[in-house]
Amino acid sequence: MNIGITGTGSYIPPVITKNEDFLEHHFLDINGSHFEHENQVIIEKFQAITGIAERRYAPPELKTSDLGYLASEKAIEEAGIDREEIDYIIFAHNFGDLTPGKIQGDTLPSLATRVKHLLQIRNPKCVAYDMIFGCPGWVEGVIQASAFIKSGLAKKCLVIGGETLSRIVDDHDRDSMIYSDGAGAAILEANPSSGEILSHASETYANGEAYYLYFDKTYKEEGCPDTRYIKMHGRKIYEFACTQVPRAMKECLDSSGVSIDDVKKIFIHQANEKMDEAIIKRFYRLYGRQVPEDIMPMSIHKLGNSSVATVPTLYNLVKNGQLDDHEVNPGDVVIFASVGAGMNINAVVYRV
Amino acid sequence: MNIGITGTGSYIPPVITKNEDFLEHHFLDINGSHFEHENQVIIEKFQAITGIAERRYAPPELKTSDLGYLASEKAIEEAGIDREEIDYIIFAHNFGDLTPGKIQGDTLPSLATRVKHLLQIRNPKCVAYDMIFGCPGWVEGVIQASAFIKSGLAKKCLVIGGETLSRIVDDHDRDSMIYSDGAGAAILEANPSSGEILSHASETYANGEAYYLYFDKTYKEEGCPDTRYIKMHGRKIYEFACTQVPRAMKECLDSSGVSIDDVKKIFIHQANEKMDEAIIKRFYRLYGRQVPEDIMPMSIHKLGNSSVATVPTLYNLVKNGQLDDHEVNPGDVVIFASVGAGMNINAVVYRV
Repeated sequence: MNIGITGTGSYIPPVITKNEDFLEHHFLDINGSHFEHENQVIIEKFQAITGIAERRYAPPELKTSDLGYLASEKAIEEAGIDREEIDYIIFAHNFGDLTPGKIQGDTLPSLATRVKHLLQIRNPKCVAYDMIFGCPGWVEGVIQASAFIKSGLAKKCLVIGGETLSRIVDDHDRDSMIYSDGAGAAILEANPSSGEILSHASETYANGEAYYLYFDKTYKEEGCPDTRYIKMHGRKIYEFACTQVPRAMKECLDSSGVSIDDVKKIFIHQANEKMDEAIIKRFYRLYGRQVPEDIMPMSIHKLGNSSVATVPTLYNLVKNGQLDDHEVNPGDVVIFASVGAGMNINAVVYRV
Repeated sequence: MNIGITGTGSYIPPVITKNEDFLEHHFLDINGSHFEHENQVIIEKFQAITGIAERRYAPPELKTSDLGYLASEKAIEEAGIDREEIDYIIFAHNFGDLTPGKIQGDTLPSLATRVKHLLQIRNPKCVAYDMIFGCPGWVEGVIQASAFIKSGLAKKCLVIGGETLSRIVDDHDRDSMIYSDGAGAAILEANPSSGEILSHASETYANGEAYYLYFDKTYKEEGCPDTRYIKMHGRKIYEFACTQVPRAMKECLDSSGVSIDDVKKIFIHQANEKMDEAIIKRFYRLYGRQVPEDIMPMSIHKLGNSSVATVPTLYNLVKNGQLDDHEVNPGDVVIFASVGAGMNINAVVYRV
């Protein structure tokens, strides 16, 4: 049985926040101390490593579920399906619907239910649930959808990744500059005319790695200690990702039977440009190869790290010829790969 | 392929809160007004409808993931499996880890990762994710696990339902008396010597029903409007559940090929005793039958409504002869059924 992506959509929020917008921020280290360098230097260094020059924030009136809904409408349209035929709505996120200025995430009801509500799908057999798997949530949702299709539970699935990280970052933390908002979605179907998942792999590292990404108080001493934000041990994540992701990608590619030379594009989670480059370099080194030119489309420069939304958004942009000189065509073999909180890693080898 | 439950476990928190402990509560209606009746009357009426005389709260040092971990250890022990062979850890919850007195749920990392961490499972191929599907989350996790096993993705899965609702209720809302804390877990395996999922059904009603359970501010006027709690339209839920759950259960049972007369027990979500009785009555009426005696084990009187934890906890108690005169034996056909936020409904027909 073929399982393929028949439609994709993304919602890129309109609010552009540039690096210079952080110049007046009051950055502190984990001990609440000021940095030696001025913000100008901090920001330049940040950009040199992550590649991020600007990022998108959602307008205050839209929540994560709204972003997911807007991306879903496009995916359904591109797939050309009747929405009443969707068997599953899988919404990958990590923090629920966040309202600007309020600190509680809202998951009652689930975001998948909210999307189903907004899509006005009446069929009760369309099962809507949320999934939490760190940044690799959307790729994992694709793997879950493919299992449902394979096992006979479903024929058509809508898989969404959406997040509004701008609302859960500590303004006093330099790492807050990484995060952004967005949503991507895809329709998966059994036996489409083109498109096929060739192999997939998922891993969870929960020993020493479980709390590399964690929830904690602001770095500002007089800040409320009960309000918690995304925090990360960046250096540890970098080392972990560079070691484990290339190996997991290789296992996944090898199990697909496709040669490394036949891979046309790698759509990797947009976490950090230098890290992504190091991962791809090591991945090719495992095959004794140099990294081919233009193998890795990047959206991080303008969109930042929107967690679960990066991979489906990136794929959607390239598929529709909206990202520089990148393109994919029917028959091309591509890899989706992600890494994030959990620590979770996954990959999908996909023939377009 | 048979897919069966080979081990179950539950964690029932030790803190007993009796109905009389609410006598001094300052209950208000949705408009912030006092009730006509005294608390004694409110509580008596509450108990007459819901059946709840007392409920369990987790001690402050334990969070939802800890409860889930404690239930999981028992399930693994009962199944007699090597924990390193578990392919999936699926944790159903709705609010993340809640710390008493703090209002943010914590899902970074996922609760499934936290359980994997506490279980000290090293195998990275054991994939840990969280699932949000309202109260029916654990039953849905069982259905997802069975799809993973059927599709060849997994052989052994740990499915957990855990929640600490006592930390997300509005003390000024009478409905706060319903909710409690707890966790249940089960190991699902392919081809066990006994135990088989015969059929299952899942539904999401997201039109008018999407916000029957919702997140909103306290009923106390001077309370913080930004802190939100579980709220529900009880009457609407009651009517919805009594109409849709019996029909969904019948569809599920009919698709299993088992006669209604061969059903030995029904393990239904412990939401409200009168509602559960009405559902079962209507279910049997669909077959032109009276409700058989002792068909529906109830734990709500002493344990309250612990959301995702009720069904696995109840099954675990009965299976181990710890609930009054109820018992299940190998070969018995039972039904798991649940209803809750989403609005979601599901059922599993299972041969023990």
